[in-house]
Amino acid sequence: MPSSARAARLKPSQIREVAELGMTLPDVTPLWFGESAWPTGEIAVQAAISALSGGDHFYQPNSGKISFRNAICQYLESWYEQPFERSRITVTASGMQGLALTAQALIDPGDQVVCIEPAWPNMAECFQIAGADIRTLALDIVDDQWTLDLDHLISLITPSTKALVINSPSNPTGWVMPAADQASLLEHCRKTGTWIVADDVYARLYRHGPVAPGFLALATPDDRLISVSSFSKAWSMTGWRLGWITAPAELEATFAMLTEFNIAGPSGIIQQAGERMIIDGESEVELLTQRLQAGYAQVEACLEAIPTVRFVRPEGAFYCFFAVDGMSDSVSFAKTLLHDAKVGLAPGRAFGPAGEGYLRLCYAQPSSTLEPALERLRRALTR
Amino acid sequence: MPSSARAARLKPSQIREVAELGMTLPDVTPLWFGESAWPTGEIAVQAAISALSGGDHFYQPNSGKISFRNAICQYLESWYEQPFERSRITVTASGMQGLALTAQALIDPGDQVVCIEPAWPNMAECFQIAGADIRTLALDIVDDQWTLDLDHLISLITPSTKALVINSPSNPTGWVMPAADQASLLEHCRKTGTWIVADDVYARLYRHGPVAPGFLALATPDDRLISVSSFSKAWSMTGWRLGWITAPAELEATFAMLTEFNIAGPSGIIQQAGERMIIDGESEVELLTQRLQAGYAQVEACLEAIPTVRFVRPEGAFYCFFAVDGMSDSVSFAKTLLHDAKVGLAPGRAFGPAGEGYLRLCYAQPSSTLEPALERLRRALTR
Repeated sequence: MPSSARAARLKPSQIREVAELGMTLPDVTPLWFGESAWPTGEIAVQAAISALSGGDHFYQPNSGKISFRNAICQYLESWYEQPFERSRITVTASGMQGLALTAQALIDPGDQVVCIEPAWPNMAECFQIAGADIRTLALDIVDDQWTLDLDHLISLITPSTKALVINSPSNPTGWVMPAADQASLLEHCRKTGTWIVADDVYARLYRHGPVAPGFLALATPDDRLISVSSFSKAWSMTGWRLGWITAPAELEATFAMLTEFNIAGPSGIIQQAGERMIIDGESEVELLTQRLQAGYAQVEACLEAIPTVRFVRPEGAFYCFFAVDGMSDSVSFAKTLLHDAKVGLAPGRAFGPAGEGYLRLCYAQPSSTLEPALERLRRALTR
Repeated sequence: MPSSARAARLKPSQIREVAELGMTLPDVTPLWFGESAWPTGEIAVQAAISALSGGDHFYQPNSGKISFRNAICQYLESWYEQPFERSRITVTASGMQGLALTAQALIDPGDQVVCIEPAWPNMAECFQIAGADIRTLALDIVDDQWTLDLDHLISLITPSTKALVINSPSNPTGWVMPAADQASLLEHCRKTGTWIVADDVYARLYRHGPVAPGFLALATPDDRLISVSSFSKAWSMTGWRLGWITAPAELEATFAMLTEFNIAGPSGIIQQAGERMIIDGESEVELLTQRLQAGYAQVEACLEAIPTVRFVRPEGAFYCFFAVDGMSDSVSFAKTLLHDAKVGLAPGRAFGPAGEGYLRLCYAQPSSTLEPALERLRRALTR
């Protein structure tokens, strides 16, 4: 049934391909999705219950509740040490929706967009749905670190480049773009008129401090920077579908209209939960960070002890992305591991050609889940 | 700041233009939006609280919860008297999102789409965002009824017409497409291969029975029909952002992928509320219907007594759409009424050129709100 060429070129997720097989098998430990194992903290739950009981059942302003947008500004000011005006903030129904609205705001069919690989495939997909022509640059491994060849990237960005999409800390690699590189890139993009789309959803999951280096700390309010944030990761609110966009104030009306014509904004109930969380939920982020440190230590110790595994330590996010010697088809390999190790991982190929040969493990799990799963994984990979 | 041509052609809503002015003035009775005055019933509130407390905080299946999709099938079967498979149902974060996903599924840039006017502008907008070339046909008033010239419509639909968008019961006119016309149109669209997009969000707000005539009752499961539904209107859940798409099963994977790349589906909390409502909430629909009957009677009596008002009785939805003699600029006129009558109405021009000369009043309000507002409106229009 022909629908549209746009729809016909969509490809099903290879992460989901593995996960859907895994869900049919007994006793598989699922480490495939980017989601922590713990439910959302009581701060958000109680705020949502109070919103429900209080009758917050009606249409919301397109850009989000004013008090919520103000709270987001204060949050940004506390981490990026410069003022943020409310007119720069649009509340979105997830980080994904922030990216999709950004693509609609920036892209006309045929516009050139540069992305970095390996990468969460949804970033490029939503730009392709908007008609973008995607160019990619692969990260390299240099001195046992994921590394971006900045000169190479800069050579790809010309006045015909409409936007550059940067996800740092990166899913799946855990790569974090150094502040100095961000500054050089911003300088270059100012000359070419290129928009920087910063997918900042892992900003608070940084292994060397409370917040990763961000373009938000460097850019002026009028720079062509759109930062996309989410409550999913740092606040363990994946299922709530809540995030925000930080953009130049001139785009406030554009994002309000695009919100109106896509979903008309997230529920007031969910917004009240997010507002409470961003004001009072710092302890939730700290708790998650501690849990992630413990989980990471376990996974690192396991993977580094397996001779066939080559593992580059992540600097942020909550994944380990590792290569297995001799593995050339990560999708088949991940499916085999469902049987051999009863562990569900995401195949590297899902993150673009540069990810083939790798597997992604999300370590946002309690020790009691990770320990037996890692032992089974070790045995399967050591055979 | 140039972003995209797509964004540059977006126009702010003229309904919102009037509403935003009205919100700055004291004592204005707001009848501008399509939203009932009553909060959502306790059935949904308690289901959401239970979902929150039960820890439903995690990612959902892209097409929606299986139990919810099954409940939607049973609901459709009860009203349209034929079987519906779960594979035809995609849960969406509002009727608006159902339309936006449908546009992405069907439309490539330049595709021809036919819409009917006067119409809620968001329908055409989301198809234009997807790149559609919109053709419109205006309803006529014949024998004091909004009427569609079916032969004219059929003459506009050729094999180059990708989709036809029909909203019945219609916002703003209350026009309802007769079942016989739906059957003829479906027959024609089968020949031309044209998709029918039925915006069915007012299906249950029909003044002559519990459900309006619908393409869902006529089409086979494989017909090129996409019906968009919403919990906003019949279940008074505007602010919850919940709806669904009914489509041929062959589009199940397409809609799942488009959901993934737009928002990844509504929150599980909200889905649980919707599921409970569609199973147990028929009494809520009945209660609203009774309230609407009372509100409509008041507005009808008022408008029919004003000599300068020409008013076509609606057959469905919850609006009165009426012309005022001598009014040529409905936006200015609606703004003047904010001062003169302290009543907030939507200007007809917002619904396309065919709506100029009209005003839209949403009567989903308690008698105690309507009575003084209608008296002030009567005085202002009788001067």
